[in-house]
Amino acid sequence: MKVSELGEFGLIGLLAEMISSAQDKSAAAYRKLLIGIGDDAAAWKGDTATQLVTTDSLFQDIHFRLETTPWYELGWKSLAVNLSDIAAMGGVPEYAVISLALPLDTEVGDVKALYQGMLDLAGRFGVALIGGDTCRAPLVSITITVLGSAGDKDGKVLTRSAARAGEKIAVTGALGAAAAGMEILDKRLKLDAASAGQLRTAFLKPEPRVAEGQRLVELGVKAAIDISDGLISDLKHVCESSRVGARVEADRIPVASAVRAHFGGRALELAAAGGEDYELLFTASEDVIGRVKSELSCPITIIGDIVAEEPGSIVMVDEHGEPVHLGKSGWEHFNAGNGV
Amino acid sequence: MKVSELGEFGLIGLLAEMISSAQDKSAAAYRKLLIGIGDDAAAWKGDTATQLVTTDSLFQDIHFRLETTPWYELGWKSLAVNLSDIAAMGGVPEYAVISLALPLDTEVGDVKALYQGMLDLAGRFGVALIGGDTCRAPLVSITITVLGSAGDKDGKVLTRSAARAGEKIAVTGALGAAAAGMEILDKRLKLDAASAGQLRTAFLKPEPRVAEGQRLVELGVKAAIDISDGLISDLKHVCESSRVGARVEADRIPVASAVRAHFGGRALELAAAGGEDYELLFTASEDVIGRVKSELSCPITIIGDIVAEEPGSIVMVDEHGEPVHLGKSGWEHFNAGNGV
Repeated sequence: MKVSELGEFGLIGLLAEMISSAQDKSAAAYRKLLIGIGDDAAAWKGDTATQLVTTDSLFQDIHFRLETTPWYELGWKSLAVNLSDIAAMGGVPEYAVISLALPLDTEVGDVKALYQGMLDLAGRFGVALIGGDTCRAPLVSITITVLGSAGDKDGKVLTRSAARAGEKIAVTGALGAAAAGMEILDKRLKLDAASAGQLRTAFLKPEPRVAEGQRLVELGVKAAIDISDGLISDLKHVCESSRVGARVEADRIPVASAVRAHFGGRALELAAAGGEDYELLFTASEDVIGRVKSELSCPITIIGDIVAEEPGSIVMVDEHGEPVHLGKSGWEHFNAGNGV
Repeated sequence: MKVSELGEFGLIGLLAEMISSAQDKSAAAYRKLLIGIGDDAAAWKGDTATQLVTTDSLFQDIHFRLETTPWYELGWKSLAVNLSDIAAMGGVPEYAVISLALPLDTEVGDVKALYQGMLDLAGRFGVALIGGDTCRAPLVSITITVLGSAGDKDGKVLTRSAARAGEKIAVTGALGAAAAGMEILDKRLKLDAASAGQLRTAFLKPEPRVAEGQRLVELGVKAAIDISDGLISDLKHVCESSRVGARVEADRIPVASAVRAHFGGRALELAAAGGEDYELLFTASEDVIGRVKSELSCPITIIGDIVAEEPGSIVMVDEHGEPVHLGKSGWEHFNAGNGV
């Protein structure tokens, strides 16, 4: 059945039913909820915790292509990129509202798969889907706004502006897998099934570091960002906001093993400039990072130093201390794939 | 200059500067704000008031056409439709996040006009624009999420589900002007300049009834909706949510005078089914409505009764009590213009 046959109110009813039956009513966000889907606005009982809001859109043919993106993964990812922003603040995601634009000939089954992807990820973090808007449009787009709060009782959050000279720069997980996965999908590259599957999943179904972000706050980290634009671009955002510089040691960047194995000379470029990994980059003293390493189960890698010189600028050096320049085409290629 | 020449980060910087210099930092929402534009999420100090969230999108060629919609009015309206949802809950709007999609060849001056329209309306209600997302796309779309809280200290809000049999149905203002304005723009109808201007403005630059919604709560009203889909459609939403029926007296519907003057036999259809007036429809006892009439400066008109029979159904009658049927073409025409 097509969306056009179901109509707007039919579609809203179907999605409201899916949401109602899928979600865990015992989650904290649900216990505070007063009015969910179906009124002019959703409502919940406020509290004095620091409140957070973020919004991000995925547009067809800009951020994804329907030829290479299953609907379930599209739903998952469109929520994941928002949860990752809350993670980068060290916050607890609570509520999501979804604005969905669809061509009238979209299959209702595809819309259900899209919502199932969102619901499965939302369920994992106790996030309640509490409203939204549906609209016909020539292309698919999904805009999600996520509301959350600081998990820390004193309201402490991670910001881009808190990096200080003398701190180390660290990242969670491994990098480059999402960009490699996008290339595999776009260029139909042939790899062994295990590597291809792993890289495709990294691009299509990223795991936002929500629990890790909250632990970073607890352990005394103050500055963080999620790696969406690419390691160097996002580090640059931190440096500009904090008015500091950064020196990155190229050979310390944790390149995902499947990327190193299959993308040879371009592995570093994918890890440093590829983007969409949704890992966290943070800065802190070596002591604090030591505690983070011992407490978190995900890999934590120090990749360089925050410096006082040349605020906003990033220098990447090789093992001999010589500057490393990434091919400009690499940057532009990925920038073109990731947004305006 | 085109958006493509400025780049994504250039555009974000320019908009952040406009927002920063335009807004009234003494507004309550600003005083609670901890982190505005420029981090992974915006943050503010929470409180125990009932919290509200709503989201609405405007898509080019679905909700507006650039040929007939100046950019300033597009910005105004895209925020107004969201503020109207908060008004329909009787809430106080506080924060807005904006997701904007634009073709790369959009003029930067047009984007500035769009934001000026949003900022002028936001400033009127002390709403702080605290974040968003920009993205290239083949067509313009604007998705805004507005956060607010119940103005009432006990957390009371207006809902669609609180209408009760025996209550009267009332509306603020006059109806049909927005739908008439859309026809004037779409069909390039020639009217006297004053009427044409008034009707165009009703469509392009609606005034959300924010203060009125808050007063309705204070005066004891419990059920309301804003008239976005059209009087009868929106009354139907209330009746379905409240499991009641409604009887509307056609000749009591307050048709905007310029619509009555220029649209003859179609005036009632425009007022009852046209939509986009963003007036409030509410239900309450005759006593409460009497108090509302004496306290509010805008027109308040009783148009019918909530009845126990046939939950979800609306009967419209003429002055002799005979059923009135609107032309089906009327309904479909406007529905096609207003969304899926």
